[in-house]
Amino acid sequence: MRSSERQIAEGILFTDQYQLTMAQLYYRMGLHEKRVQFDHFFRQYPDYGAHQAGYCINAGLEWFLDWMQEARFREPELEYLSKQTGRTGSPLFAPDFLDWLRRHGSFEGLTIRAIPEGRVVHANVPLTVVQGPLAMAQIVETSLLNHLNFQTLIATKAARIHDSGRGRLLLEFGLRRGHGKGANAGTRAALIGGADFSSNVGVSHVLGYPPKGTHAHSMVQLFMSLGMSELEAFRAYAQVYPDDCLLLVDTIDTLHSGIPNAIRVFEELRRKGHQPVGIRLDSGDLAYLSIQAAKMLDEAGFPDTSIVLSNDLDELVILQIITQISQEAPRYGVDPDRLIGRLVYGVGTRLITSWGEPALGGVYKLVAVYDQGRWIPAIKISDSAAKTPNPGHKLVWRIYDRRGNATADLLSLDDEDPRRMDRLVLRHPSDPMMFRVLSREEITEIEPLLVDVWIEGKLVYELPSIEEIRAQRQADVARLDPGVRRLVNPHLYHVSLTQRLWDLKQELLRSAMDKSR
Amino acid sequence: MRSSERQIAEGILFTDQYQLTMAQLYYRMGLHEKRVQFDHFFRQYPDYGAHQAGYCINAGLEWFLDWMQEARFREPELEYLSKQTGRTGSPLFAPDFLDWLRRHGSFEGLTIRAIPEGRVVHANVPLTVVQGPLAMAQIVETSLLNHLNFQTLIATKAARIHDSGRGRLLLEFGLRRGHGKGANAGTRAALIGGADFSSNVGVSHVLGYPPKGTHAHSMVQLFMSLGMSELEAFRAYAQVYPDDCLLLVDTIDTLHSGIPNAIRVFEELRRKGHQPVGIRLDSGDLAYLSIQAAKMLDEAGFPDTSIVLSNDLDELVILQIITQISQEAPRYGVDPDRLIGRLVYGVGTRLITSWGEPALGGVYKLVAVYDQGRWIPAIKISDSAAKTPNPGHKLVWRIYDRRGNATADLLSLDDEDPRRMDRLVLRHPSDPMMFRVLSREEITEIEPLLVDVWIEGKLVYELPSIEEIRAQRQADVARLDPGVRRLVNPHLYHVSLTQRLWDLKQELLRSAMDKSR
Repeated sequence: MRSSERQIAEGILFTDQYQLTMAQLYYRMGLHEKRVQFDHFFRQYPDYGAHQAGYCINAGLEWFLDWMQEARFREPELEYLSKQTGRTGSPLFAPDFLDWLRRHGSFEGLTIRAIPEGRVVHANVPLTVVQGPLAMAQIVETSLLNHLNFQTLIATKAARIHDSGRGRLLLEFGLRRGHGKGANAGTRAALIGGADFSSNVGVSHVLGYPPKGTHAHSMVQLFMSLGMSELEAFRAYAQVYPDDCLLLVDTIDTLHSGIPNAIRVFEELRRKGHQPVGIRLDSGDLAYLSIQAAKMLDEAGFPDTSIVLSNDLDELVILQIITQISQEAPRYGVDPDRLIGRLVYGVGTRLITSWGEPALGGVYKLVAVYDQGRWIPAIKISDSAAKTPNPGHKLVWRIYDRRGNATADLLSLDDEDPRRMDRLVLRHPSDPMMFRVLSREEITEIEPLLVDVWIEGKLVYELPSIEEIRAQRQADVARLDPGVRRLVNPHLYHVSLTQRLWDLKQELLRSAMDKSR
Repeated sequence: MRSSERQIAEGILFTDQYQLTMAQLYYRMGLHEKRVQFDHFFRQYPDYGAHQAGYCINAGLEWFLDWMQEARFREPELEYLSKQTGRTGSPLFAPDFLDWLRRHGSFEGLTIRAIPEGRVVHANVPLTVVQGPLAMAQIVETSLLNHLNFQTLIATKAARIHDSGRGRLLLEFGLRRGHGKGANAGTRAALIGGADFSSNVGVSHVLGYPPKGTHAHSMVQLFMSLGMSELEAFRAYAQVYPDDCLLLVDTIDTLHSGIPNAIRVFEELRRKGHQPVGIRLDSGDLAYLSIQAAKMLDEAGFPDTSIVLSNDLDELVILQIITQISQEAPRYGVDPDRLIGRLVYGVGTRLITSWGEPALGGVYKLVAVYDQGRWIPAIKISDSAAKTPNPGHKLVWRIYDRRGNATADLLSLDDEDPRRMDRLVLRHPSDPMMFRVLSREEITEIEPLLVDVWIEGKLVYELPSIEEIRAQRQADVARLDPGVRRLVNPHLYHVSLTQRLWDLKQELLRSAMDKSR
């Protein structure tokens, strides 16, 4: 795609056709400016097959807001729509509707509340709440879901990988395997979720992060094709980057060529007063090789050099490597904890694609309609009880227990404030038999999660820096119960309703069932 | 990301940092303009877990070439690089190197041959061959892999889904679950591989395809929240789109509300002289419901309306639906073949993300270096025999058997022409015991696959239209052996070497082994 076409393909037409056909229908019925509320939420945590997330990291809001601020119906878009035809060849979109889009087809009428980026978020909790005129609240859906689903998916994967590596340095290497330009959004989300740096130069620049990377196998191969050796390739690298010398040691033979050659070059560097950075292992048994590498580097007097691991890593592979090192390293006289402390993880494909679960099923559901002076909650009754969205205007609260850990997210009606309640009744969202009662003494904090972001077309939210978002993520993950944080078979975090919201939902379900009979 | 930042993030810095650090090293060593060859290929077909591809559909070239034509080092990029620092705080990139990038940092020196888009392609066959000055041939790697890996991945998935649906209409619905802006590239690839239309408005416009879509559950819900009924919602839709009336029938109860209401509206439309289009089923047992829907529509006199199926479809789900219909439909007096013939598939998440295998492991390997007046093949010996890339300059030929089916892809040296050989010896790429001999009579056609695309910085290739690419895909898939085309456990397609290429590879391996000892 040429950049001239990108404005069309990535602007306000970055949406599904049915949003436009529905918008015209609402226009025709006089419903297009009726105020409605849509809730954005996901129903299930990513399930990677052999393992599953117990929480997600919210991400994508800033880039979605950037999109909203620029997307509008300009003449090229309107002209294109005017040329669309139906089956009989007549125009699909009528001039009066297109004219309405020309005059009102922006997001000026919308109001958005959202949970900030970097926060731990849970299934069935409204992450983004959109209110405003029906037609535009509908047209914004696809782009909202695209932006927020993907970045939340990748931030979540990054948080898991970061956690599995015990918080050691995590590098995002996935640009070549990312989904087209979406790889840039993936890099941003990875940084939010737990990656410390990325190899992706352009987006690192935009985000203000120094990109990371040294050299590929091809460099060693090139030297060898020209009749030189791996050692000469390493020496050349050390000469150009004496203070940033990290060498990839598996092009020929890791233990018998790569590491010995790297150590020779490191010794030469040290004699010239430079500090070598480390080595990278990109193939073979990474646990075994890192133990041997640590031993060789220690013996040569380089105990502080990093050992970067790469090659199809993800959270379970890293967990296994660390487990194997813990068990095997002592046998070779290597201190496992010291070794684990010098590891760096370069993670590509499996982070940038969220391997195992490459999509988050975030949805955008109509929950209320403003009619005759009041908000009417909406409900879709073909869903199972568990799938039925929670109706109407809601607030979201996070409850912290005595230890200061998050113990539940509570959805309330918008005139309820659980901070003023003596005891909290936490109702299960669909099972009438399940509820918990918490007394004030069991609670250390009750925190509202949704913030005002966009009011009547204006950005009212001060966008936090990536550093602030990362700090929020770190704080939130630290306040999770270890069981919820577990990589495999996590404990289910409670998302509950207040008694009044529960009662409203039951009443609506009954009345909808009656009507449909 | 704001559009002003996009130029940085999606331009020439849409690459990995190590490409730039290696480029500077080559500059420093005087090697940056040495001519080299890199081959781009994939080693394994996508493996979706319970099923695996036996072929891929090549895609992504045009958008990669678009990128190449626009990407260059401008002042903002050079200024950014000049500000990057190493560990000691001194600049990472020196002024003389940046000046070289300013003057020569374009793709003008590159020459690219490639297999066209839409062609069936196989593992270990060079899909794209890049020759040119080392520094720029290295810098282009990341973007080349990003563009070609992703679109080939999605075109392949689309071809499988299209095949499983017996070639019936396939709609791409994945924008909300795609990976950010990469969803647009995914839509293009889906259209190449087998989707007929997409819901994605913007990119459909850019590609010249009418986008498809009608309405969502939210439309019916909205009407109901306002005290109206599903029937009234359907009527409103039919009134606005009398000739394009396709109704989503599962908001309340598919069999007892949705379909009967749709039929009432269809009857009203018919009385007014309009032809209703059909219904969409988005939940429940799609096989069972489509049989019942067909029966009800037939009985009401609408035997030609479409039945659109959606909801987490992929090739195996569609295969199962069709199998179930074949077995169950007769029991209800419904002709299964007629029913299968009126089905339309709307496929979202599992197509746009290539569910089960969300990345194609395409690689870009140094295979030759031009030195002292001749090309020297390069080899990386730490790889296993099966993983060792085929060295040097090569041509790619497709051999068709007596039935006109593709029976093997043959890699030859660049001065070999198998069309002039009396008999062909097809050597297995790594196993010395495996080879086939084909006589002239067993062969109906030998076709070269690589075409000149980009010569010394100029696009020399007339880019085919999407329609032409689709026709190529259709022709190539039709000439596959049914065993290779199989969805599950496909037969392995032969990719072979000529005797001379085999001999060269063995010789290089021996000499590289000797050198590394």
